[in-house]
Amino acid sequence: MLPTIAREDDVVVMIDQRKLPAQETYVRCKTAAEVARAIKTMVIRGAPAIGVAAAMGIAIGMRKSSATGTQKFAAEFYRTCELMAATRPTAVNLFWAIERIKRSFAAGAEAGESVDQIKDRLDREAGTIHDEDVASCRAIGAFGAEIVPGDAGILTHCNAGALATAGYGTALGVIRGAVEAGKRVAVFADETRPFLQGARLTAWELVRDGIETTVITDNMSGSLMRQGKVNLVVVGADRIAANGDTANKIGTYGVAVLAREHQIPFYVAAPLSTIDLGAPDGSAIPIEERSAREVTHVGGSQVAATGALVWNPAFDVTPHHFIAGIITERGIFRPPYTQSLKRAFE
Amino acid sequence: MLPTIAREDDVVVMIDQRKLPAQETYVRCKTAAEVARAIKTMVIRGAPAIGVAAAMGIAIGMRKSSATGTQKFAAEFYRTCELMAATRPTAVNLFWAIERIKRSFAAGAEAGESVDQIKDRLDREAGTIHDEDVASCRAIGAFGAEIVPGDAGILTHCNAGALATAGYGTALGVIRGAVEAGKRVAVFADETRPFLQGARLTAWELVRDGIETTVITDNMSGSLMRQGKVNLVVVGADRIAANGDTANKIGTYGVAVLAREHQIPFYVAAPLSTIDLGAPDGSAIPIEERSAREVTHVGGSQVAATGALVWNPAFDVTPHHFIAGIITERGIFRPPYTQSLKRAFE
Repeated sequence: MLPTIAREDDVVVMIDQRKLPAQETYVRCKTAAEVARAIKTMVIRGAPAIGVAAAMGIAIGMRKSSATGTQKFAAEFYRTCELMAATRPTAVNLFWAIERIKRSFAAGAEAGESVDQIKDRLDREAGTIHDEDVASCRAIGAFGAEIVPGDAGILTHCNAGALATAGYGTALGVIRGAVEAGKRVAVFADETRPFLQGARLTAWELVRDGIETTVITDNMSGSLMRQGKVNLVVVGADRIAANGDTANKIGTYGVAVLAREHQIPFYVAAPLSTIDLGAPDGSAIPIEERSAREVTHVGGSQVAATGALVWNPAFDVTPHHFIAGIITERGIFRPPYTQSLKRAFE
Repeated sequence: MLPTIAREDDVVVMIDQRKLPAQETYVRCKTAAEVARAIKTMVIRGAPAIGVAAAMGIAIGMRKSSATGTQKFAAEFYRTCELMAATRPTAVNLFWAIERIKRSFAAGAEAGESVDQIKDRLDREAGTIHDEDVASCRAIGAFGAEIVPGDAGILTHCNAGALATAGYGTALGVIRGAVEAGKRVAVFADETRPFLQGARLTAWELVRDGIETTVITDNMSGSLMRQGKVNLVVVGADRIAANGDTANKIGTYGVAVLAREHQIPFYVAAPLSTIDLGAPDGSAIPIEERSAREVTHVGGSQVAATGALVWNPAFDVTPHHFIAGIITERGIFRPPYTQSLKRAFE
C-alpha cells in the first residue's frame, strides 16, 4: 500500500506529491496550519485524501492545544476547522470530513467529556475516516471490476489513485480491482496539465504495481479513442451534485465528450463522501482557479510567452448525461441520478 | 514581419523555435544536411515553413556543389532532394516544395542550362516559394477575416502563425486579417503539448503584435467553450486530403469534436500547397510518431514516471464533416470538399 498519508504520534506524514516521480520525499506536518498549507500547495491532493488530511490536521492541531477549559478548547477547535475549510473550495470531501469531525466534537461536548477525552475522540474519528476511505476504495474496486471488459483499454484522467485517497484509489481502485479479478488491462494515463498528476502520479503508482501504463498528452485522447484503443473511461471526482453532474480535474469534461463521440462508456468512481446532495446541479459547485505560474512554468522552465494572459481553472463539470454510472462503495449508481444518488444515502 | 526563415548569401538563417520564448536565437545552416537536421529537430516547424526551408536547403546545397558536369550535378541534386524528403513525413508542403524545385531543375536541364545557370534558377525558385508563401498567408488573412465575428473569441491550436510559414501565418493570418479589418479579437491559445507551440510560439507572436492572448492547457478548451468564451476555432493544417480530412497537430481532432458539441464553427486555414489530392481521405496520410522524451521531459525536468510507456503521435486527422470551411489564398472552400477542393486547382 502506498504511504499517501499517515499519522506518527502527533505528526501527519505525507509523501510530497509535488516532487514525484523524480523524488520520493515526505513532508512532516506538526501543526494544523502546516497541514492546511500542505493541502493548499498540493503536497497532498485528490478529494478523498484531502478529507483525510483535514481530519488528521484538526486532530493533531487539537492534540497540541494547551487549553484546559472546554470553552477555550471549543473556540480553538472551530477556528482550526475554518482554517482547514479555507484551503481548497471544490472537493467536497474536505467539508464532509470537517463536518464529521465537528459532529464527533459536538457529541463529546454534549456528553460532558473532558478536553483530553475529546482530544482522544478526534484522534479516533480521524483514524476512522482514514480507514473507512481505504475500505471504500476497496469496495469501489470490487464493484467497478464488474464493468471492466475482459481485455480492457482504460483511459483515466488525472490521478484518482492511492495517492488521491488514503490508499488503493477510486478510478485506479477500479483498475486494481479488475487486475485482481484476472482481467487483462492496459491503462492510458492523460498527463493532466498543468500539475501533471497523470504522468507523474498515476503512471508512477501503476508502474509500481506492474500494470501496463501508457502516458499520453491530454490532447491525444481523441486520437487514441478514434483508433479503438480505449473501451472504458474511468475517472475520479471532486464533487458530485445531486443530479450526477460531476466536478473533476480540468479536462475531464473534454474526455467525456470524446468518449461519447466514440461510444465508449464513461464512468466516475468516488466514495459517497464525494456526493453533495446540497448541490442540485453542477452550477452550484465552486470551481477553484489557481495561479498562472502552474501553466507558464514547468519545473522551473518557462513554457509560455511573457505577456500572455492565463486561465487556470483546476476543475470542470461533466454534465450527468455523459456519465454511464457512478461507482461507489455501495455499488454502481445509474441514471437518473437524482433518484439513484438520493437512494444511496437512505 | 517575424524573421522565421531568411537567406543570407549561401546560409539559411532560422529563428530557433525550440528555444522560444525564453531565448531569441538563430540557427545558421550552411549545408543542405544542416537544413534537413533543423527540420527534423524542429528548429523550424509548421507545414508551409518546412516547405520553404526544404527549398532553400536544396538551393544552398546545390549552390555549394563542386560538380562541373550536369550529370554529376543532377545525381547530387536528387540525393539532396531525398535527404530533405526524409526529414518529416506528414506535412505535404515539404514534398510539394521538393517537387516544385525538381520541376524547375528539370526545366533547366531540358533547356540545356549550365550548372551555374541551374544553381541560379534553384535559388530563384526557392525565393519564389518563400515570397509566394507570404502572399498566400496575406490572402488567407483577407479571406478569413470575413468569417470572424465582430467581437470574436477565437480558439487556436498549435502555431499556424508567422513562425509556421514564411511570414504572417495561416490561422494566425486569419486573426491578423480580422484585427487589421478592425474587429475586436480575443485569442485563446491551447498550449499544445508536447512541444508547446501554442504557449511558446503562438502566444509570443500575438503578444508581440499586441493581440490579446490567453494561454490555456489543452485540456481546458472544452470548459472554455462551455462557458461561451469561444465563437470561432481556426487552426492550420499539415495535409488536407481530397475529401477535406485534415491532418494537423495532435489534439486538433479533439478540439473539432468539442467545437461541434458547442456549435462553434471550426475552420482550417492553409495554402493550396497543403492540399494533397493524391490522398483520397485521411487514412492515406502518414502520421509521424516522435520520441517518448518529448512527452516525458519538459525543459530538462522529468514529468512522467520511469517505466511508463509513451505514445507520441505528432498529428491527428480531423474528419471533413467537422470542418465548416477551408480558408485558402483562393478563397474559402466549403463542403462537399471532394468537389470544392478539386475545383480549387482548376
